[in-house]
Amino acid sequence: MKKIMAVNAGSSSLKFQLLEMPSENMITSGIVERIGMSKSVFSIKVNGEKIEETLDIANHGDAVNLLLNKLIEHDIISSFDEIAGVGHRVVHGGDKISESVVIDEALIQYLEEIIDLAPLHLGPNLTGIKAFKEILPNVKHVGVFDTAFHQTMPEESFLYAVPYDWYTKYKVRKYGFHGTSHKFITQRYAEMMNKDIHDVNIVIAHIGNGASICAVKNGQSIDTSMGFTPLEGIPMGTRSGNIDPAVVEYMASVKHKPVKEIINQLNKKSGYLGLSDLSSDSRDLVSASKEGNHQAALAINVQAKRIADYIASYHNYVGGAEAIIFTAGIGENAKETRENIGSRLAAFGVEIDDKRNNCRGVEQLISTDHSKIKVYVIPTNEEVMIARDTLALL
Amino acid sequence: MKKIMAVNAGSSSLKFQLLEMPSENMITSGIVERIGMSKSVFSIKVNGEKIEETLDIANHGDAVNLLLNKLIEHDIISSFDEIAGVGHRVVHGGDKISESVVIDEALIQYLEEIIDLAPLHLGPNLTGIKAFKEILPNVKHVGVFDTAFHQTMPEESFLYAVPYDWYTKYKVRKYGFHGTSHKFITQRYAEMMNKDIHDVNIVIAHIGNGASICAVKNGQSIDTSMGFTPLEGIPMGTRSGNIDPAVVEYMASVKHKPVKEIINQLNKKSGYLGLSDLSSDSRDLVSASKEGNHQAALAINVQAKRIADYIASYHNYVGGAEAIIFTAGIGENAKETRENIGSRLAAFGVEIDDKRNNCRGVEQLISTDHSKIKVYVIPTNEEVMIARDTLALL
Repeated sequence: MKKIMAVNAGSSSLKFQLLEMPSENMITSGIVERIGMSKSVFSIKVNGEKIEETLDIANHGDAVNLLLNKLIEHDIISSFDEIAGVGHRVVHGGDKISESVVIDEALIQYLEEIIDLAPLHLGPNLTGIKAFKEILPNVKHVGVFDTAFHQTMPEESFLYAVPYDWYTKYKVRKYGFHGTSHKFITQRYAEMMNKDIHDVNIVIAHIGNGASICAVKNGQSIDTSMGFTPLEGIPMGTRSGNIDPAVVEYMASVKHKPVKEIINQLNKKSGYLGLSDLSSDSRDLVSASKEGNHQAALAINVQAKRIADYIASYHNYVGGAEAIIFTAGIGENAKETRENIGSRLAAFGVEIDDKRNNCRGVEQLISTDHSKIKVYVIPTNEEVMIARDTLALL
Repeated sequence: MKKIMAVNAGSSSLKFQLLEMPSENMITSGIVERIGMSKSVFSIKVNGEKIEETLDIANHGDAVNLLLNKLIEHDIISSFDEIAGVGHRVVHGGDKISESVVIDEALIQYLEEIIDLAPLHLGPNLTGIKAFKEILPNVKHVGVFDTAFHQTMPEESFLYAVPYDWYTKYKVRKYGFHGTSHKFITQRYAEMMNKDIHDVNIVIAHIGNGASICAVKNGQSIDTSMGFTPLEGIPMGTRSGNIDPAVVEYMASVKHKPVKEIINQLNKKSGYLGLSDLSSDSRDLVSASKEGNHQAALAINVQAKRIADYIASYHNYVGGAEAIIFTAGIGENAKETRENIGSRLAAFGVEIDDKRNNCRGVEQLISTDHSKIKVYVIPTNEEVMIARDTLALL
């Protein structure tokens, strides 16, 4: 029995879960927020209760020291040595990382070389890794990469039809993200069906504030909707997903803004928020839409339409999917969204069962017995996936 | 019996066909090239033979005068009055034009107002219209718009998930192009099947140097792959089709180029040409690929894969397509391309018949008798469509 910590470091935050492995029981979880700002917030769950403290935390190193000491203070561990391994969520592994790996100096150097591929996230990930490694130098640290699961994509999926040297010289290609979630769902589905993972042909709709669809053939990702960055694909909470690339130039020109500002608007002011002029939260849109707000309904339907488009493409691309899986915040909880998307796949004989679909956050078959493709809700658990991969490398 | 001229004016060229209507027989066709440059070229078909002359043509007005006088010189018409109407291909009609219309001053003013939506093409179109109207002031001139057929798309298809005022203030939305071709194919398919056009549910793959897929439900376009500009959608001869919009910023940054230059590369140096580093002509790629050129094979397969993705999406979106139609230069002539795409739709029970598929430029069923979706080649004819719409408005 080993205690493994799963860590997700952002620019001013540090999320963690401590898991007992291999049982996969969560021992505790928490987050440090506003690192490097005034009034940082540390919160942790102790015996199911959330304890929150406001204090000043200067940097990620201080945050790691604090959270480890809090684990001792709350009698969760008795010494740092009890932590058998730390699994770090890393947003990007470039095209050389196709699985989770032990973090050594060479890996850190490699990640620093590819930092331009995801400057906003990879930098903070590295800061978190370095802080943990300094404080826990004798523990194995494992990198678990959002892109790794998608490295099985064939060239025809991951290459853009752009000048070839954009790929060879500048690493421009589809990488895909949410890989840890898509991998977890693939494993869990195989387990639920009592199937060899190599026989799994499914389409996964990971729909949260970020959202991506994944085509899984023979247990491997062969295509996914996010691309070079998480902007591509389907509309999300604040991201546009696909648009005509020429719109970027046009809007930069008519608004007299730098291209950086236009891309920022596509990442931060688009999707649900942009179309609805109301909210990036799907729950707000569902309520507003029921009250007759046209733009809220539009935001919902534009997304549902494009998710159905991707599912249709991927259903075909995997050679006929045996199941469609909904997961992540919205996928697990929003029956309206699932019903909306399901009804758009009627041409394939997909039938959502109203009663079964009336569920939240549980594993559940939600299609009718007659549905030609089965549809499931399977809650994702990236932290468990991180802990599993970490355990395997201890 | 009326003689109608179909005209397509570019920045330095003017293509024309003279058709006898309603029989739709082509009387003659030709082109003026290098208008405004030295050594302009005028060519025309007379009795099936191509006659070419090199001379200096200063502007579109001179080109129109020349071509009309050549029609008299070659005894094709005896006076300008014989031309009953002129149909002008117009690339863009914005969101107010959903069908062909007689060109009056108000329309010209409207087109001038929306010129920024397609500055490279709409300007020359207008130049051509004005030149013809001046020389043939008593003839009806009709605008036939590449975007018009797609104006039946619902909001969920044509809106991008971007800030809503990009649409309301700046007209950013999907317009779609090749509408005249998609409309022609839809009408022709209905005629071939002896069906009411409102019962036609098909997916059209217009694949030429430019390429777009169209979802036709109840005889109307409900989605298409080109967008705000012809750049969006599937990879083409030199256009990239969809990419992660964030690539535009990234490449502008790493290459220290203005965004305009990056979009130019996506339009002119991408697609077949970009991936293959060889040619924008599919025939060159097919040959090179057969000789083992990896990048040529990649260019072919990246496009075929994404065309199959769109066909799968649209097959679903129209509620189950009864047929898939290949048309335009590549779609009509390249059996390898059709076979490649068809084999990627096997999950839907599509089966291409090798023998039937061994055809070029003719109307032909190319799927097997067992194929669950029928697949046809139907040659497109935009000039006939322009002449039909012009005749209807005389």
